[in-house]
Amino acid sequence: MKLETTYQSNNYPIIVERNALKQLHQYLDSYKDVVLIVDAEVNQLWEDVLSFITTDYDAHKIVIPSGESTKTFSFYEETIESLLSKHLTRDTCLIAVGGGATGDFTGFLAATLLRGVDFIQVPTTILAHDSSVGGKVGINSQHGKNLIGAFYRPKAVIYDLNFLDSLPYSEVISGYAEVYKHALLNDKDAVTALEEQYDNSDNLHQLTNIDYYIYKGIETKLNIIIQDEKESNVRKFLNLGHTFGHAVEYNHKIPHGHAIMIGLIYQFIVSNKQLNTNFDIQHFINYLTALHYPLELIAEFNFDILYDLMLNDKKNDFEGVQMVLLEDFGKPVVQHVNKQIHEQAFETLQSYFK
Amino acid sequence: MKLETTYQSNNYPIIVERNALKQLHQYLDSYKDVVLIVDAEVNQLWEDVLSFITTDYDAHKIVIPSGESTKTFSFYEETIESLLSKHLTRDTCLIAVGGGATGDFTGFLAATLLRGVDFIQVPTTILAHDSSVGGKVGINSQHGKNLIGAFYRPKAVIYDLNFLDSLPYSEVISGYAEVYKHALLNDKDAVTALEEQYDNSDNLHQLTNIDYYIYKGIETKLNIIIQDEKESNVRKFLNLGHTFGHAVEYNHKIPHGHAIMIGLIYQFIVSNKQLNTNFDIQHFINYLTALHYPLELIAEFNFDILYDLMLNDKKNDFEGVQMVLLEDFGKPVVQHVNKQIHEQAFETLQSYFK
Repeated sequence: MKLETTYQSNNYPIIVERNALKQLHQYLDSYKDVVLIVDAEVNQLWEDVLSFITTDYDAHKIVIPSGESTKTFSFYEETIESLLSKHLTRDTCLIAVGGGATGDFTGFLAATLLRGVDFIQVPTTILAHDSSVGGKVGINSQHGKNLIGAFYRPKAVIYDLNFLDSLPYSEVISGYAEVYKHALLNDKDAVTALEEQYDNSDNLHQLTNIDYYIYKGIETKLNIIIQDEKESNVRKFLNLGHTFGHAVEYNHKIPHGHAIMIGLIYQFIVSNKQLNTNFDIQHFINYLTALHYPLELIAEFNFDILYDLMLNDKKNDFEGVQMVLLEDFGKPVVQHVNKQIHEQAFETLQSYFK
Repeated sequence: MKLETTYQSNNYPIIVERNALKQLHQYLDSYKDVVLIVDAEVNQLWEDVLSFITTDYDAHKIVIPSGESTKTFSFYEETIESLLSKHLTRDTCLIAVGGGATGDFTGFLAATLLRGVDFIQVPTTILAHDSSVGGKVGINSQHGKNLIGAFYRPKAVIYDLNFLDSLPYSEVISGYAEVYKHALLNDKDAVTALEEQYDNSDNLHQLTNIDYYIYKGIETKLNIIIQDEKESNVRKFLNLGHTFGHAVEYNHKIPHGHAIMIGLIYQFIVSNKQLNTNFDIQHFINYLTALHYPLELIAEFNFDILYDLMLNDKKNDFEGVQMVLLEDFGKPVVQHVNKQIHEQAFETLQSYFK
């Protein structure tokens, strides 16, 4: 399956299928230099499959630490200086093979090396179906995640579903949160279809038909970011679940998608209070429990800490905490939510787990 | 005098006149946060004139080291972390007040802070009439100048000619090299007009009518970069004199424009050899001597060192040293120049000074 962005110019293809890696050739043939940047864990599992890149293109290969630990200032400096020592020209393509952190890091290298070289995203997790599309790249600051970065589009996203075979279940449910979020932004049918397809943890772990749902998720995201690449209005909808989710992720050090799923429940509760919607909270809790999300953690949450973290979110303005709410499935709105409603919503959330 | 870029979108005004600073207001009024980043030497001389920015906009002010010493990785990290500690939002504008290095550094901060905030260039040198226009921003690597950076357009260039009153003569001739280069890219009349206006060092130091020639220089540059922002073809013409000039600048640690003027003479010699042009080399040497360029340094040059540095230029490709030559005034071409011609040209250049 293939999608293509529809910006006014500088569009890129997104290929989602098994063995998509074979299609890398058509994008690499024109470059003078190729650099493969690969996550250490992915490299261990898939080194043989990736070896054609180093042999066919005489590519430099850089193995980077797994996950967010790669997105530091010092590792960025070390890596870009190492690339510059190779006397690369602007006719260079970087290839990011790994999860979201690998793509963010490699994309920021590409955006800033010699004032910009090309890069290709090769996501290897479900979560990265989200981060590899849309051109957000960056590294972390002492003051927060992704605060140093750029909007910089890849030349192609080559999503080879074979990589998903080696994902541990914890990674599967982390990625599934963004798939589910995209369905919530779509419509009720999309949500129902997902819940029926993956009605328990065994079914979700098998990932039957996941290519279709990943494709739909990317399509939903593209429809939004084509209208608003730099997040001045509708792109904010993609932060559904992220205001509370980011605070939980930061404070409890759990995987991104686990936190976002909790943020999605929290958002339903706030919507019910602020917009008088009638979302069935118990239904969502039952569903996520069946998928083995670590909801028991919610009993340990501390309101004051999480509220302060929400206040620090870079998407806020001077009026306080801004979050995305759902008026209905497929109908997001961005609203300010005052502290009192947050307190009430937090109490409601915890009441299910105490 | 006011120019405006003519890109398809995201255009910006370039205001060149005395007291242009007063026009900063109309560009700053809409921002939530303003940050003034100012060169230490400029700050010492012009602190009072700049004070309205901190008082009227409650702007944060950061004084940075003068010149290229500011464009290091560690100072970039320190400054961006310091900015992030102030909880800025994307609704922030950075103002760069200083020479080319201040603009390059501030522009790179703006390009990468929170994935991009706005910035305004306030150049204070003649040299910066060149660097403040065109959106090239960046810092230096261990491996060379400006190797880490981006193409990122300012929101406005506010060129207040009052700043030029405090320029030492050494800075005047450094900046004049780029004004002269722009005339060479224009036509013979433009060159003759400059040489007549500034026929000796006293006249040049007085800078009579410099606003007109700076305006013409910016106009020439704009005509080129609008066609080719990212330097894939005609923008390379702006590197006239820079292939040899950069090597001299790097090896002999002299001001940019002093080296570029020597690079311009060298380019005439190479053009005479490779293109069979008939430029009067002695004329140029006499003119630059009258303006007190430090041409006596040429006697000390070492061919092997400078040739190696030319080979490392980031604009080269695998075919060797590429440089801009003139078929005639206003008629630049980009050509590969083989080592033999470089050797001959170098010998000719030195013969005038031995």
